[in-house]
Amino acid sequence: MVVFSADERDDFTFIEFELPEGVIAPGELAQALVDAPEIDPRKGVVISGRGPVWLFGALVHIYHATAWVATFDPRLGAVVVETHTPNRKVGEVVLG
Amino acid sequence: MVVFSADERDDFTFIEFELPEGVIAPGELAQALVDAPEIDPRKGVVISGRGPVWLFGALVHIYHATAWVATFDPRLGAVVVETHTPNRKVGEVVLG
Repeated sequence: MVVFSADERDDFTFIEFELPEGVIAPGELAQALVDAPEIDPRKGVVISGRGPVWLFGALVHIYHATAWVATFDPRLGAVVVETHTPNRKVGEVVLG
Repeated sequence: MVVFSADERDDFTFIEFELPEGVIAPGELAQALVDAPEIDPRKGVVISGRGPVWLFGALVHIYHATAWVATFDPRLGAVVVETHTPNRKVGEVVLG
């Protein structure tokens, strides 16, 4: 199971996921994407949490119609991985 | 720097990346995406390598027009994170 929370910031939505059981099986991925918060696509999104690469990858994909997508790296901050706005560049660190 | 290799399989391209310096900085991400192999979008793609979540996330995005995208998890195999073909489902493990 994946539990999501969404925190609205000025120009992006901060999405945090948690795995209450500490792990997620691939068979749970489709349901997790159904449970992921709907967000305002005019804003960016930052995806944060402790989970496998494939969970991040799937979340990056479902939010690809937003202004920009970043994944949160605890060592660095949120790194922009895709963007459709001139205000953000791939590789830019937000919340660094 | 990110070094890529691409291995053609019957129905997907297996892309492996390596970080010769062991690390990648966010400022190197845009160039890495330029260097990523071009692949046949009619096939799927499996992305494999040891690197940060944001590198995987950016690669998942640039390959999103392919038949399906999976990321390789050494503990599980390649987990499908997005698909545009009825032959593959999100969460399916390929190469498991």
